[in-house]
Amino acid sequence: MARVRISRRLHFSSAHRLGRDDWSQQQNEEVFGLCASPNWHGHNYELDVVVEGEIVPETGFVFDLKDLRELVEREVIADVDHRNLNLDVPWMKQRNPTTENLVVAIWERLQPALPPGVRLARLVLWETPRNWVEYSGE
Amino acid sequence: MARVRISRRLHFSSAHRLGRDDWSQQQNEEVFGLCASPNWHGHNYELDVVVEGEIVPETGFVFDLKDLRELVEREVIADVDHRNLNLDVPWMKQRNPTTENLVVAIWERLQPALPPGVRLARLVLWETPRNWVEYSGE
Amino acid sequence: MARVRISRRLHFSSAHRLGRDDWSQQQNEEVFGLCASPNWHGHNYELDVVVEGEIVPETGFVFDLKDLRELVEREVIADVDHRNLNLDVPWMKQRNPTTENLVVAIWERLQPALPPGVRLARLVLWETPRNWVEYSGE
Amino acid sequence: MARVRISRRLHFSSAHRLGRDDWSQQQNEEVFGLCASPNWHGHNYELDVVVEGEIVPETGFVFDLKDLRELVEREVIADVDHRNLNLDVPWMKQRNPTTENLVVAIWERLQPALPPGVRLARLVLWETPRNWVEYSGE
Amino acid sequence: MARVRISRRLHFSSAHRLGRDDWSQQQNEEVFGLCASPNWHGHNYELDVVVEGEIVPETGFVFDLKDLRELVEREVIADVDHRNLNLDVPWMKQRNPTTENLVVAIWERLQPALPPGVRLARLVLWETPRNWVEYSGE
Amino acid sequence: MARVRISRRLHFSSAHRLGRDDWSQQQNEEVFGLCASPNWHGHNYELDVVVEGEIVPETGFVFDLKDLRELVEREVIADVDHRNLNLDVPWMKQRNPTTENLVVAIWERLQPALPPGVRLARLVLWETPRNWVEYSGE
Repeated sequence: MARVRISRRLHFSSAHRLGRDDWSQQQNEEVFGLCASPNWHGHNYELDVVVEGEIVPETGFVFDLKDLRELVEREVIADVDHRNLNLDVPWMKQRNPTTENLVVAIWERLQPALPPGVRLARLVLWETPRNWVEYSGE
Repeated sequence: MARVRISRRLHFSSAHRLGRDDWSQQQNEEVFGLCASPNWHGHNYELDVVVEGEIVPETGFVFDLKDLRELVEREVIADVDHRNLNLDVPWMKQRNPTTENLVVAIWERLQPALPPGVRLARLVLWETPRNWVEYSGE
Repeated sequence: MARVRISRRLHFSSAHRLGRDDWSQQQNEEVFGLCASPNWHGHNYELDVVVEGEIVPETGFVFDLKDLRELVEREVIADVDHRNLNLDVPWMKQRNPTTENLVVAIWERLQPALPPGVRLARLVLWETPRNWVEYSGE
Repeated sequence: MARVRISRRLHFSSAHRLGRDDWSQQQNEEVFGLCASPNWHGHNYELDVVVEGEIVPETGFVFDLKDLRELVEREVIADVDHRNLNLDVPWMKQRNPTTENLVVAIWERLQPALPPGVRLARLVLWETPRNWVEYSGE
Repeated sequence: MARVRISRRLHFSSAHRLGRDDWSQQQNEEVFGLCASPNWHGHNYELDVVVEGEIVPETGFVFDLKDLRELVEREVIADVDHRNLNLDVPWMKQRNPTTENLVVAIWERLQPALPPGVRLARLVLWETPRNWVEYSGE
Repeated sequence: MARVRISRRLHFSSAHRLGRDDWSQQQNEEVFGLCASPNWHGHNYELDVVVEGEIVPETGFVFDLKDLRELVEREVIADVDHRNLNLDVPWMKQRNPTTENLVVAIWERLQPALPPGVRLARLVLWETPRNWVEYSGE
C-alpha cells in the first residue's frame, strides 16, 4: 500500500523567556537580546505534526486525524497552552525554551505515544509566521 | 545543471462523503464521524504540485509553470472542481474519498502525464488550512 | 466608555448546489454555471462575527469571546458544518444557498440571540479566500 | 482631492495575564478562564493602523508609510514588543490588558502623535488570527 | 430586500517607480527613498473589489461574481498585469503611481462600468501583505 | 545533540523581465509569454532560508536567527530589494532571471557565507503565493 504523510496544525499561546539561570541578566541580554526580557514575553505558536504510514485498506486512512489531534492535545497542548514555558511545563523545566529545544521536547512526548504502524515523520514549530524550526528525530 | 523543484498551487471545490457501501450508516458514523453525513459535505481543496528536474540552460526553466498548470487542470481539476468525489469522478469510483486515497489517485493521473526530463516529486493536498496530506509516490 | 468591535472567525464545511426547483437543470446551469452541478459541490466557509458594544469597566470586555463562540456554534455551526445547505438546514430550506442568502439567514439567527448591551455589527462570510460577502443588517 | 485610507500592519510579541488585583485568583479564573493563568501567557499581536486624509498632489501620498511605521514603532511597538503588558508598559499600568483595553490605549497614544491633515480612522488589533478587535475612536 | 456587499479579490504583478519627472533623481530619492530606484521595482498587487446592492430575489445574487471578475479583468487587470505602471498604462500616464493614486484611478475605471442596481462600495489595494490602501469614492 | 532545521522568511520587491538578449522580442514572447513584456513587471518575493545544524548546548540555539537575518539581508536582500533583477544585480547579470536561476544564484551567495557547524539545507523562493521553487544544492 502507498505510504502517505498526514498532517495536522495545532496552536498554543505561551509566555517564555530565553536565558540561563547561571548567567547574569546582562550576559543573557548579550546573547538573547530582547528575548531575555526579565518579565517574559509570549507567542502564538503553531505546531504541524506530520505522521507517516501505509493507508489502511479498510478505512482509507493512515491514521484518524481526530485521534491525532486528541493525542497531541493531551500530550502537548494541555501542558503548554496559556502557560509559561519556563515555569509551568514539567518536561521543559531543565531546558532553555528556545524553539529548537521546544521542538525536540515535543518530539520526545509524541513519538512514544503513537500507535504501531505509524511513525512521527516531522514536526514544524512556528514561533511567528516568519520564524520556524523543523525536526525529524535525527 | 542544478536540480530544482518548481511548484504550483491549484484549488478545487468538491463535495464528498466518507463511508463504505458495505457498511451500515451507523457503522460509517462510528468510524468516520460527521464526515459520513448522508447528504454530503464539501471542501475548498488546495493542491500543491511539486515537479523536479534540471534547469534547461536555454530557457532557465525546469518546466514552464503555465504548461504545468494546464496539465493539472486538464488531468485533475476539470474532473473534480464543483463535482462530487464519490459520484462524478471516474478515477475515484471504487475508492473511499479520504484525503489519503485522493492524493494517491491524483498522483496516478499526473505522474504518467509529465514529459521526459521532469519527475513528480511531491503532492501536498490540503483539505482545510489545518489538515493536509503529502505523497511522494512511495 | 469606548465602543469597540470584537470579532471571532469560525469555520464550517458544507455541500451545496445553486439552483431553483422551478427551473430546468439547463436553465440553472445557464445562470449558475458549475455551481448548479446536480450532485453538489462544497466549500470550507469562514464566518467572521463582529459584535459592537461599550467596554464593561469591571472586566475590560465588550463581550466574552468564549461566550460569543459558543453562541455562534450553537445557533449556526451545529446546523451547517458537515451538512448539505440545500437539504439539511431547516432555516435555509426555502432559500437558494447563495452566499448572499446564507449571510442574511445567519444574521437572522444571531441577531436575536445576542444579550442586551451588544449588537451584531457585521458578518463577513468567505466562500473561498478570494470570494466573500458582508452584511450589516440593512 | 480624493480622501484615501492608508494602512500599515505591525507586529509585537508580548506576555500578559487577564485579571483584577482586587479579585482572588479563583474569581479571576471564573471570569477569565485560562487567560488568568498566574504565570502569564503571550501572543503574537498584529496591529493594523489605518490613517485617512486627502492625497497631497505634490507627492501622491496621503502620508508616507515609512513615517507612519516609524511613528507607530516609537509610540507603541518599542514599549510593548517582547514585554509584559501588565508589568512593563507605563500606559497600560492601571488597565486589565484585554484586547479591548489595549486597542483603546494604543489609540490614545497614536491619535495625538499624527500630523495635521491626517486622522486616525481605525485600529484593528489581532490577538490571534481568529480573534481581533476594531476601534474607531468613538 | 437586504443590501449585501459582495467581494472578489484579484491580483496583478506590475513594475513601477515613484517620482516626478520635474524633480531630479536626488530629490525623488529624498522623498520616495528606495521606491525611486531608477531601474524600477515591482509588486504582486491584490485588489479587493467590493460591490453593494440588493439581493435579486429571482437568483439570490446581488451580482454574479463571475461577471464581476470578468469586468475587473477587462477594465483593469488586462492593462496592468505584467506591465509597467509608469510606462504602459494609458490611464496612469500623468500620475505618480503611488498606491493612493492607483486606487483612485482604478475606481474611475470601475465605477462607470458597473450595471444599474449595484454600486462600487469600496476598493482595497494591497501593495504588500503589510501595506494597503482603501478608497470609497469620497 | 539533536539536528534541527531553523528557518527565517525574508521578502524583497523587484522588477524583472524574462528573455534572452540573443532572441527577438517575438521569440521571447513565444517562450515566456507576458513575462517577456519589454517594460518589465515585478513581484513581492518571499525567501525561506532553512539552515541545519546541531543544537549548541550552551545556548539552545542552532544558529541565532537574528544573525541569520542579518547575513541574508547583507548578502542578498540589499542587492535585490527595490531593484531590477536584470539590470542592477551583479551576480544575476549573465542569467535570465527565472525563479529557478534566481534561487540557485542566492544559494551560491549564502552557502559560503554561513559559519562552520551549520549548513544551508533548503531555499524556498516564492514568486507569488501560488508559484514557488525549492533548491537543496544538488
